[in-house]
Amino acid sequence: MRVNVTVSLKAGVLDPQGQAIENALGSLGFKGVSHVTQSKLISFDLDSTDADAARTQVTDMCEKLLANTVIERYDIALEQD
Amino acid sequence: MRVNVTVSLKAGVLDPQGQAIENALGSLGFKGVSHVTQSKLISFDLDSTDADAARTQVTDMCEKLLANTVIERYDIALEQD
Repeated sequence: MRVNVTVSLKAGVLDPQGQAIENALGSLGFKGVSHVTQSKLISFDLDSTDADAARTQVTDMCEKLLANTVIERYDIALEQD
Repeated sequence: MRVNVTVSLKAGVLDPQGQAIENALGSLGFKGVSHVTQSKLISFDLDSTDADAARTQVTDMCEKLLANTVIERYDIALEQD
């Protein structure tokens, strides 16, 4: 199955990349843009057919490697083949 | 409306971040993981109610700022309020 993990900053954590994008869009003349955030999307193939087992395993990956859970939250989406 | 832009490397472009994640997951003992890619997810509020006009405007943002279209492709998703 294909796994998509979105890792984003928790609410209240400063997002300088998002702020830089918002400022740059404004400088380029784009109006009406606000609350810009930049997150990471990590995708991979996982050799598993059991969605529950896969979700448990991917949660473990997020806690150990993919996210810094002090400042980041993660969202897991599984696409069955 | 909320706009979600996914910016990912085009097929064939080296993805060292994805490779580093794949190696690290293997080192941590996670099996069966392959084809790891890391992309950027840029989200923002856009002060617009016309989906067609919004898509045109966001495409312009991608071409001018959000993506390096030589090596990256982008996918735009709009969420109406």
